[in-house]
Amino acid sequence: MSSATCLALSGGVGGAKLALGLSHTVDPDNLLVVANTGDDFDHLGLRICPDIDTVTYTLSGLANPSTGWGRKDESWSFMETLDSLGGETWFRLGDRDLALHVERTRRLGAGESLSAITAEIAKRLGIAARIAPMSDDPVRTIVATPDGPLAFQHYFVRDQCRPEVTGFHFDGADTARPGEALTKALTGTSLEMVVICPSNPFISVDPILAVPTVRAMLADFPAPVIAVSPIVGGQAIKGPTAKMLAELGRPTSAFAIAEHYRDLIDGFVIDTADAVSADAIRDLGCQVRVTNTVMKSLQDRVSLARDVVAFAQEL
Amino acid sequence: MSSATCLALSGGVGGAKLALGLSHTVDPDNLLVVANTGDDFDHLGLRICPDIDTVTYTLSGLANPSTGWGRKDESWSFMETLDSLGGETWFRLGDRDLALHVERTRRLGAGESLSAITAEIAKRLGIAARIAPMSDDPVRTIVATPDGPLAFQHYFVRDQCRPEVTGFHFDGADTARPGEALTKALTGTSLEMVVICPSNPFISVDPILAVPTVRAMLADFPAPVIAVSPIVGGQAIKGPTAKMLAELGRPTSAFAIAEHYRDLIDGFVIDTADAVSADAIRDLGCQVRVTNTVMKSLQDRVSLARDVVAFAQEL
Repeated sequence: MSSATCLALSGGVGGAKLALGLSHTVDPDNLLVVANTGDDFDHLGLRICPDIDTVTYTLSGLANPSTGWGRKDESWSFMETLDSLGGETWFRLGDRDLALHVERTRRLGAGESLSAITAEIAKRLGIAARIAPMSDDPVRTIVATPDGPLAFQHYFVRDQCRPEVTGFHFDGADTARPGEALTKALTGTSLEMVVICPSNPFISVDPILAVPTVRAMLADFPAPVIAVSPIVGGQAIKGPTAKMLAELGRPTSAFAIAEHYRDLIDGFVIDTADAVSADAIRDLGCQVRVTNTVMKSLQDRVSLARDVVAFAQEL
Repeated sequence: MSSATCLALSGGVGGAKLALGLSHTVDPDNLLVVANTGDDFDHLGLRICPDIDTVTYTLSGLANPSTGWGRKDESWSFMETLDSLGGETWFRLGDRDLALHVERTRRLGAGESLSAITAEIAKRLGIAARIAPMSDDPVRTIVATPDGPLAFQHYFVRDQCRPEVTGFHFDGADTARPGEALTKALTGTSLEMVVICPSNPFISVDPILAVPTVRAMLADFPAPVIAVSPIVGGQAIKGPTAKMLAELGRPTSAFAIAEHYRDLIDGFVIDTADAVSADAIRDLGCQVRVTNTVMKSLQDRVSLARDVVAFAQEL
């Protein structure tokens, strides 16, 4: 167990997997996972925070490994009944998952911050690492398409990422303040590394970077900033990253991801499948670590986390 | 099947049972069940309408016969998980029941009226009779106790009717308008009878009567107004009616109920167990029908409904 202090920036599935690996690699007291909240939305009157929840469920061992969202051991009585009442069912909410959304929505309504609620729920679920939203202010990812803008979950879940993407907008990002935990980590002196998890750069990491001061602080950050490529052998492990790269006219490669982050990162971690790109990525001005980045087992997650931490400590 | 047009005023369990009987007795197109909404409350950010829901579940065959609230074939994953998250669990919400509350709350938030939502859900659940709230405006029953006022569900569910009752207040009743269906029924000319179901007079029927104009319209109503006693042999079939009568210094008897309604009713239906009180009740100025009022089976419900309808038609 390393005593390194680590900030991980994470979206959903892939990011949460590495965050879990990190929680087994560094002292969890020294690990802060900041989750994207650009995917958050209000649905059926409930505040849904998909990335916070995926991180929370993953770190607590409650995640559903087959879907990449929601809980294992879930039941679906609520959804079945909602359907019979003519309610909206395109966004699947399990009976157990629902309790988190209802309780969070209630607490937000009572004036608690998303940060406080997220921290308290993580604690209740036995998570030793800290999980925090990128901001307590609403930032909402809008996907630009040839047919006009789409709210993120309409693009992502309802329309299953089918629309062509022409760009992104982070509504509210201009005035959002970074969450207290994120600010404290980035302005303090104890942080020894920042890890940009293998999440979608456009819809999982860019919203975090769009929160005022975050991008600038990372660009100038004294400790190493490492990104892990979510693209392996030209494919995204999960989600629309490769499709988005293609629609935006960029190569669907680890190189394109490194290029996307070039102003921020000191090191970039790619899969052995992409070893051939290592030199081109180094030419962007960062160090490269080539390793296995495909996380199928817990052991894979821990191994990758160890590689990332060791890489950061060498920089 | 009688072609009589009938308005039934109902609280929860007992009222819903007779409403079900009435829906088998009169043409359901001619039956309007107006439910008490004084028990309604906002809980976990959701609008809960216990009496509307008990009537709806009972008339659709979905009611849980052993609890008197909620649905049969219910599951409890939500509640279990809410408990693990430290949420409030004193008010039990099943996974299927929850769908109704979430959907209703969403529609109310979108500007639909409780009347419209209630009617639409009843239709979806295959109910031919009409179900309507007493009002679309909030009326909230407050229970006065020696230790101060209690919100109704805190008294009824959380504190399980333990506090001594000294009186009742219907917050919002001064300015509430009767629901459109109720107004139309009471101001039209087609209604042939009004049935005050065997519900608790203080907390289920009085809130309906407290809505401005309702009591006065019933007192002067040209067609017969019949009440069915919720007290049988000095006991309430279910709920705190007898306890409340005692705490308010009244006899725990069918007579006390008839006295409570004396200004409104033309006829009063009592159980054979209370036949001895028939003359005393007649002396209050109303006709009395003695029959079996204990509704254990569907057949009991239909029999009582037939007796009530026949009684009204004789008056």
